[in-house]
Amino acid sequence: MFSHNKRLQYTVHVSMPNPGLANLMLEQFGGPQGELAAACRYFTQAIAEDDPGRKDMLFDIATEELSHLEVIGNLVCMLNKGAKGRLAEGVDEQGEMYRSITGAGNDSHLTQVLYGGGAPLVNSAGVPWTAAYVDTIGEPTADLRSNIAAEARAKIVYERLINLTEDPGVKDALTFLMTREVAHQKSFEKALYSIEPNFPPGKLPGDPRFTSVYFRMSKGEADLKGPWNEGPDWDFVPMTQDSGPVDGRTGWASVELPEGDAEVLRAMATRTQSRTDIDPTTGAELGAGVTPPPAATKK
Amino acid sequence: MFSHNKRLQYTVHVSMPNPGLANLMLEQFGGPQGELAAACRYFTQAIAEDDPGRKDMLFDIATEELSHLEVIGNLVCMLNKGAKGRLAEGVDEQGEMYRSITGAGNDSHLTQVLYGGGAPLVNSAGVPWTAAYVDTIGEPTADLRSNIAAEARAKIVYERLINLTEDPGVKDALTFLMTREVAHQKSFEKALYSIEPNFPPGKLPGDPRFTSVYFRMSKGEADLKGPWNEGPDWDFVPMTQDSGPVDGRTGWASVELPEGDAEVLRAMATRTQSRTDIDPTTGAELGAGVTPPPAATKK
Amino acid sequence: MFSHNKRLQYTVHVSMPNPGLANLMLEQFGGPQGELAAACRYFTQAIAEDDPGRKDMLFDIATEELSHLEVIGNLVCMLNKGAKGRLAEGVDEQGEMYRSITGAGNDSHLTQVLYGGGAPLVNSAGVPWTAAYVDTIGEPTADLRSNIAAEARAKIVYERLINLTEDPGVKDALTFLMTREVAHQKSFEKALYSIEPNFPPGKLPGDPRFTSVYFRMSKGEADLKGPWNEGPDWDFVPMTQDSGPVDGRTGWASVELPEGDAEVLRAMATRTQSRTDIDPTTGAELGAGVTPPPAATKK
Amino acid sequence: MFSHNKRLQYTVHVSMPNPGLANLMLEQFGGPQGELAAACRYFTQAIAEDDPGRKDMLFDIATEELSHLEVIGNLVCMLNKGAKGRLAEGVDEQGEMYRSITGAGNDSHLTQVLYGGGAPLVNSAGVPWTAAYVDTIGEPTADLRSNIAAEARAKIVYERLINLTEDPGVKDALTFLMTREVAHQKSFEKALYSIEPNFPPGKLPGDPRFTSVYFRMSKGEADLKGPWNEGPDWDFVPMTQDSGPVDGRTGWASVELPEGDAEVLRAMATRTQSRTDIDPTTGAELGAGVTPPPAATKK
Amino acid sequence: MFSHNKRLQYTVHVSMPNPGLANLMLEQFGGPQGELAAACRYFTQAIAEDDPGRKDMLFDIATEELSHLEVIGNLVCMLNKGAKGRLAEGVDEQGEMYRSITGAGNDSHLTQVLYGGGAPLVNSAGVPWTAAYVDTIGEPTADLRSNIAAEARAKIVYERLINLTEDPGVKDALTFLMTREVAHQKSFEKALYSIEPNFPPGKLPGDPRFTSVYFRMSKGEADLKGPWNEGPDWDFVPMTQDSGPVDGRTGWASVELPEGDAEVLRAMATRTQSRTDIDPTTGAELGAGVTPPPAATKK
Amino acid sequence: MFSHNKRLQYTVHVSMPNPGLANLMLEQFGGPQGELAAACRYFTQAIAEDDPGRKDMLFDIATEELSHLEVIGNLVCMLNKGAKGRLAEGVDEQGEMYRSITGAGNDSHLTQVLYGGGAPLVNSAGVPWTAAYVDTIGEPTADLRSNIAAEARAKIVYERLINLTEDPGVKDALTFLMTREVAHQKSFEKALYSIEPNFPPGKLPGDPRFTSVYFRMSKGEADLKGPWNEGPDWDFVPMTQDSGPVDGRTGWASVELPEGDAEVLRAMATRTQSRTDIDPTTGAELGAGVTPPPAATKK
Repeated sequence: MFSHNKRLQYTVHVSMPNPGLANLMLEQFGGPQGELAAACRYFTQAIAEDDPGRKDMLFDIATEELSHLEVIGNLVCMLNKGAKGRLAEGVDEQGEMYRSITGAGNDSHLTQVLYGGGAPLVNSAGVPWTAAYVDTIGEPTADLRSNIAAEARAKIVYERLINLTEDPGVKDALTFLMTREVAHQKSFEKALYSIEPNFPPGKLPGDPRFTSVYFRMSKGEADLKGPWNEGPDWDFVPMTQDSGPVDGRTGWASVELPEGDAEVLRAMATRTQSRTDIDPTTGAELGAGVTPPPAATKK
Repeated sequence: MFSHNKRLQYTVHVSMPNPGLANLMLEQFGGPQGELAAACRYFTQAIAEDDPGRKDMLFDIATEELSHLEVIGNLVCMLNKGAKGRLAEGVDEQGEMYRSITGAGNDSHLTQVLYGGGAPLVNSAGVPWTAAYVDTIGEPTADLRSNIAAEARAKIVYERLINLTEDPGVKDALTFLMTREVAHQKSFEKALYSIEPNFPPGKLPGDPRFTSVYFRMSKGEADLKGPWNEGPDWDFVPMTQDSGPVDGRTGWASVELPEGDAEVLRAMATRTQSRTDIDPTTGAELGAGVTPPPAATKK
Repeated sequence: MFSHNKRLQYTVHVSMPNPGLANLMLEQFGGPQGELAAACRYFTQAIAEDDPGRKDMLFDIATEELSHLEVIGNLVCMLNKGAKGRLAEGVDEQGEMYRSITGAGNDSHLTQVLYGGGAPLVNSAGVPWTAAYVDTIGEPTADLRSNIAAEARAKIVYERLINLTEDPGVKDALTFLMTREVAHQKSFEKALYSIEPNFPPGKLPGDPRFTSVYFRMSKGEADLKGPWNEGPDWDFVPMTQDSGPVDGRTGWASVELPEGDAEVLRAMATRTQSRTDIDPTTGAELGAGVTPPPAATKK
Repeated sequence: MFSHNKRLQYTVHVSMPNPGLANLMLEQFGGPQGELAAACRYFTQAIAEDDPGRKDMLFDIATEELSHLEVIGNLVCMLNKGAKGRLAEGVDEQGEMYRSITGAGNDSHLTQVLYGGGAPLVNSAGVPWTAAYVDTIGEPTADLRSNIAAEARAKIVYERLINLTEDPGVKDALTFLMTREVAHQKSFEKALYSIEPNFPPGKLPGDPRFTSVYFRMSKGEADLKGPWNEGPDWDFVPMTQDSGPVDGRTGWASVELPEGDAEVLRAMATRTQSRTDIDPTTGAELGAGVTPPPAATKK
Repeated sequence: MFSHNKRLQYTVHVSMPNPGLANLMLEQFGGPQGELAAACRYFTQAIAEDDPGRKDMLFDIATEELSHLEVIGNLVCMLNKGAKGRLAEGVDEQGEMYRSITGAGNDSHLTQVLYGGGAPLVNSAGVPWTAAYVDTIGEPTADLRSNIAAEARAKIVYERLINLTEDPGVKDALTFLMTREVAHQKSFEKALYSIEPNFPPGKLPGDPRFTSVYFRMSKGEADLKGPWNEGPDWDFVPMTQDSGPVDGRTGWASVELPEGDAEVLRAMATRTQSRTDIDPTTGAELGAGVTPPPAATKK
Repeated sequence: MFSHNKRLQYTVHVSMPNPGLANLMLEQFGGPQGELAAACRYFTQAIAEDDPGRKDMLFDIATEELSHLEVIGNLVCMLNKGAKGRLAEGVDEQGEMYRSITGAGNDSHLTQVLYGGGAPLVNSAGVPWTAAYVDTIGEPTADLRSNIAAEARAKIVYERLINLTEDPGVKDALTFLMTREVAHQKSFEKALYSIEPNFPPGKLPGDPRFTSVYFRMSKGEADLKGPWNEGPDWDFVPMTQDSGPVDGRTGWASVELPEGDAEVLRAMATRTQSRTDIDPTTGAELGAGVTPPPAATKK
C-alpha cells in the first residue's frame, strides 16, 4: 500500500516561468526514458518477484521513482505558471498569446491548448506515454540488465536537459534526479551479479557451434577488429553474399504438407500467377499517355 | 548498401503446418523483443556512430539480425502453409475453417483474416510493431547497455518458444537464433568495457551527496539487505511518510512569477474555487433518488 | 513524496491458479478503465491543481488508486503462479504446455511468452497501456466530470469481472475495488458541485441562438421525444438533407486569398484536373481483360 | 443510412490563410477532444443502444458531430489555402518556403510535408487519432456520464482556440461549435437522469463497509476537508504508511498451489536467487575502472 | 452537412447470435481495411479537394462508406445480442459465462468485458483503430491510387469473412458490402485516368539515368525475369555486395562542418572511443563466473 | 540472407549542418511514406510469396529500399553533425543551445534531447514508426495495387522535400531516391498486369445488382458527372435521406434470439430504460445554479 506526503523528496525552486522549457522537461515526465516509465518498470517487477531481497529493492526504487515523477511534474507546472492562467482566463493583447505559444516552438502549444498548462503524460513532442516503453519480461537475469540500461539512458537525458537550462533551481533539481539514476544503476548491478551464474541469461544453453562465432556480414574499407570479434574466445567468420547457410544444409525453407493442402496451394498459385511471357500494358503506361500497343507483345 | 541471397542463413524445416504455433512465432518477428526490433536498433546506431570499430560491429550485427528476421519469417510462413490457401480459395467443409481459426486461440484468426496467412509485423497478440520498442538515445555508454539487455531479453523469449515446441526442425532453428543472441551479447559487452571509463555513463558527474545513498522507501516485515544496499559503498537511509525532503529545505515547489501573472492566477483561482463551507446536492444524489434538501446546508 | 508498505490495502486470497482468468484481470491493471489510468489521471491533476482542497483530495485518491493497482496486480500474479514457473523451467509433458496456453484463449499466451507470467501493463487483449486513455485537460469543471465518468466506467468493468469469477477470494477483492469506485465518484461529485457555478464549464458563454436548440438530424419511424429534446428549455428543430445552414448564410467555406496564392492554386488545379469529357481506359479494364477501345470515346 | 449536402451546417469565412493557426485547429479535427472522437463515440453507442429514445438522440447528435467535423475541417483547409499550392507546385524564392513552415512552429511542417496542406486526422502535435480516445463501455449509466464529460472537455478546448484567434470568421464558427457542446451536454444530462436510479451505475451494490469511507492517504500541512470527505455521509479514515489492511486480515497475497507447481517454483527460485551474503564485483565497478578485489568478499 | 435515416442502406438479418463471429466482423468495423478507415479516407480528401467533380465523387463515396459502417456495426450488434445482456445482468450458471467468452477464442472476451457487447472501433484482435491507417497525402495522382488499393484490400477481407460464415443473412450483407468495394474501385480508376497525364505522379521529373533501371539486389538460384525487369524499357543492372555506388562517386557520406563543430566532435570521439588494443573483462564474464585475468591482456 | 557494404548506394554530400532540415528528412526515414515502411512492406511480402518471379522482384526491391533507408539516414546524420556533439559535451554559451533547438521549431528538440542527434525511426513530428503503416494483406492482386500506391506517395513526399531544400547535395540525393520510386512503381505495375485477370481482385464475384451502380449520396449545387459515374457501364442512382434500403426490404437489423436471451434482454432494458414521461432535474441545472422544481414535472 502506498502513502504520500505533499512535501517533495527534493525541493523545487524555479526562477521564472518558461513554457518552452516546461515542454522539454516533459521528456522525463511522460517520455520513454522518464520517471513514469521507471516507476512502472520497477513496480510491476516488484509485484511479480518472488525473491525477497530483490522484491524489497524493487519496491524501494519504484516508490522513489514515483517520488521523482512528482518532482519533475512540479518542475513542469512551475514553468507553466502564468501561461496556464492567461489562456484559461482569455487574457490577451493583440494576438500576443498566439505568438507566444507558436513562436516558442517545442510543442508548448499542445501543452497549453490541449492540456491547459498542466503536466500531461506525453513526451516533449506530444506523443502519449505507452507501456510499449516497458521492456520487462519476467526473468531477473534479463530484467536487471534492462533496468541497468534504463538507468543509464535516464541519466543521459537528464544530462542533456541540464545542459539546456540556465535556471539554477532547475539545474539543481535535475542534478538530484540524475544522480539518483546513478545510484539505482549501482543497486541493479549488485542485484544482477549476486545471481550466480547470470550469463547466459535464462536456463537453456546455446548451441556450442555458434556461441563464439562472429559473423562479418558488412564489408568496409578495412577489416576492423576489436575485443568484440577477436581474441581467444572468438571465431571470426567472414560472410559474403555468396556464403552458404551456416548449418551446411540447403538454406531453403520447407514444410511437409498434409494431403489436400498441396492441392489447394496449387489452385491458388494458378489463379495468382504472374505470367513472365507477356509484356502487359499497365496503368503507368495509360497514365503516362503512352499508346497501348495493338496487342500485348510476346517477348 | 545491402545485398541479398535467397538462401537463408540457417536452414528451416518444419514437420507440419500449425497456424497456432505460427502465431506464437510472430513474437520474434514483429514483437518487442523480436528481430525487427534488433535490426532497427543496431542499424540506426550504426548509421549515427562515428567510432570506426563500433560502427563496423553494429553493421555486422544489424545485417545478421535482418537475416534472422528472414529465418523467423520463414518459420511463420511454413507453419501457415495450407491454411493460407484454404481461406483464399474458399475451400471449406461445414464450417471447419471457422472452427479451426477460432478454436486455435492465439489470435491466429488475425493472421488469417487480416493478413492472409503471411508474416505480418505484429506480436503474437496482433499488436503492430512500433519504434517505441527501440530505446536508442545516441550515447554509446547507454546504448551498449541497452543492447546487452535487449539480447538478454531476446534470448529468453526464444527459450520460451523452444519450450513450447515439439517440432524438431522448429526447435533447431530457434536454438540457432537463441544462440546468436548470446554471441551478440558478448560482443556488446566487449564493446562497452573497451570504453574507459564507462560508468557513470555520459559526462556529468553526479552530486556526491546522493550517489551512494540507498533510500528505504518501502516497509516490509523485515529490513532485508543485500549488496545493493549495504556494504562500504552504501549509505542506507530509511525514509518514512514523515521524512522531510532529502535536501533539508522545505520540500515545496515554488516559482517567481512575473508581474501580471499572479493577478491572472488569482482570477482563475476565484473562478474555479471549491467551496468547503457548503454541502451541495450532487448528480450522485439525484441519480440515487435522494431528495435534495430544501437548501444547501451549511456545515 | 510517496512511501510504501508491502502489506496490501486489501488482502488477496486465490483458491487456484488460472492464467485465463489472470488475463481477464489485466483489464483493470493495464486496460483503459483500469487502476493505472485512474492513478495517472488523479496524480497529474493533483500536481497541477492550485485549489488546496481539491489538490488534497486528488492526492488522497491518486495514492489509493496506486494501492489498488497493487491489489489487482497481486491478483494477476497469484492466478499466474505455477504457469510462470513451468514455462521458465521448461517443464513440459508431451506438448501440454502449448495446449494449455493456446487452448485457454484469452491471450494468456502473450502473458506467458512475452511477459513471463508477470503483470504487464496491457489490457486483456494485450494492447499496451497508453496515456491516450487519460483525458485530463486542466480545467476543473471539465476534469471533475471526466473523473466522475471514469469512476462509473471502472465500477462497471469490475462488475463484469465479478460476474465472470467463481473464486470467492477473487470476488471478495474485486468487490472491494468496485466499491471504492463508488466512493470516489461521490467525492468527485461533491467537489464538482462545490464549484459554483460549474455549468457551462469554463468561462465563455455560448451563443444564445444555439444553446437550447435540439437539431433532429436523424429520421426514424416515429418522432421520439424525451426530456433531452422537449420541454420548456428546448427548441426542437427538424433538419433534413435539404435544410440550409443554421446561420442563414450560404453554408459555403471561403477564404480571402493574398495576391499570388490564387495564381498558384490555379496552376495546381490545371495540373491535377479530372477531365469529365472523356471516358478513359483504366487499370480496372486492363485488369479485367476488357479490350481497350480504339480511342478514348467522347461522351 | 447517411446522406449529405455539400453546404455546411454553419458558414465558414476566413480572413487570411494561416497555416500555424490551421495546425492548432487540428486539435478539434483529429485530437482527443475533437469532432471525430465525438462522432465515433455517439455513433457506436447509437448502433448498440436498444432503448428507442436514447438511440434516437444518439443518432441525432452523432450526425450533428459529423457535420461539425466537416465545419472544423473546412476551417483547416481554408487556413491552409495557398501554402498547399506553393509546396505542391514548387514555387519558392530563396528558401522562403522552408522558413515559413519551420519558423511557424506548431508542427505545420507536418501538415504540409506529409499531408500536403489537407486536413489530416491528427492532433495539433501530429499524433494520429486513435480509438483509444473513445471510452464507451456499453452501459448507459456509465456512457452517458462519459458523454457529459466529453462535451465539457470539448467546450473548453474550443474556448481556448477562440482565445487564440483574432480572425472574426474563425471566432464565429468556433463559437457556434462550442455552443453546441453546451447543448449536447444538456441533452445527455437529461438522458442520464431519466434513468431512475442511475447511481451507483450498473447493477451490483457496493460493499456497505466501504461505500462511505474516505481514506486520507496523503499527508499535508493541514487536514483540509470539504464536502467530499466530511459531513453525515462520510467516514473519514486517516491512513498512514503503518496502517494495516482495511479488511483487518493480513494484507498479504496468497494462492493455493496445486501439487507440482510448488516444486517447479522452488526450482525457479533456486536458479534465480540473489545471494545476499556476497558483495560481487559488478559491471559498474569494471566500468568505473575500480580494481576488482582478489575475491568476492563475504560481508 | 450530414443527415441520417435509421433504416440501413442494406437489410441485415442474422440467424443466430455468435459472439466469436461478431468479433471477426470487427475487422471491417474498426480494422485497418474496414469501413471507418474508408469513410475517413474519402471524407478528409473530399474536404480538401478543389476539383469539383472529384470533390463530388469523394463526398458520395464517403457518405456511402459511413452507411456501410452502420451496416457492419449492426451485424456485430446482432451477433452479440444475448451475450451482452447475460454479462450485464449477471446471469450465469456454474461458470458457463467464463467458459463461453474464453473458449470462443477470438478476443470476444475483450468485446464483452471491456466493451459490453457493443461495436467498438477495434480490429478483431482488439487493437484500437488509428488514423495511421489513413494514407492520404493530398495529391490526387497519389491519393486516387491509394484509394484504388484500399478498395482492393477491403474487397479481399470481405471475401475472407464470407468464406468463414455459414449464416445466409450474414453472407448476404457481406456480399453487398464486398460488391460495393468493386464499384468504388471502378470509380476511382476512372477518376485517376481522367487526369492526364497522371504518371509519374506529381510534378517533378525523375532523373533519366535511373527511371528505367532495374537493380538486381538479391541473388537466387536462377536469374528470374519478367515484364517488371526486362523488355525495351528496362535496363537490368546486377548489383552485388561489391558493386560501387550507382552514381560513380565514393559512396561515402560527408558534410562540410563549420568551424568549432569539428573540435567538439573530436572531444566526443575521444571521450567515447572504443579501445581495440585491450581485451577488457566484461559483465558477461563476471556473470558466467569466469575468473578475470590478472590484468587486461594486450593483444 | 543479407550482406552489407559500408559504401552507400548513392553518395551523400551535405554543404552545411542543419538540424531543422534533418528533422524534415525524418519523414522519409521513420515516417509513414518512408523507406522503412517500404522495406518492411516488400520484405514481408517477399517471404510469404510463392510465385517465383514476384518473390524475386520483391526481394530485389526490398533490398534496395533498405539501401535507401541507409541513404536517407546518412542525410539525417550529416545534417545533425555538430549539434549532436554540442549537446553531448555540454558546450554552450549563454543559452545559445536552448535557443537553437527550440527556435528551429520542427521538433528538432526531440531529435536532440531524446535521440541525441541520431536518426530515430520517427516521422518529422516525432511519432514513432508503426507497422500499422504497412497495409499488406497477402493477396497479390491487392498487395501490388498497395505497392503501386505506396510508391506514388513516396515519390510525392520526396518531391516536397526537394522543394524545401537549397543544398545541392541534399537535392541530388533526394532526386535519386525520388526517381527510384518511379522505377519501382513501373515494376509493380508490370507485375500486377501480368496476373490475368486481376480485376476484381480475389476470387469471389460481386453481386451483379450492385457492381455498376453509382449511388449519389451527397447533394450539391449541380449534379456533377464524370466518367466515374456516367457512361455505358454506370447506373446512376440518386439517394436521398428518404430513400429506402437498396435491397428493397425493410432496412432494419434483426436476429433470431435463442430461448432465454430475449428474457435477459428485457430485464436489461427495464433496468436501463430512459423515462420519457418526466423532466428530471440534472447535474447541469444544479451546476448552473438553477433551483430544482419542487417535484419532477410530468409533461
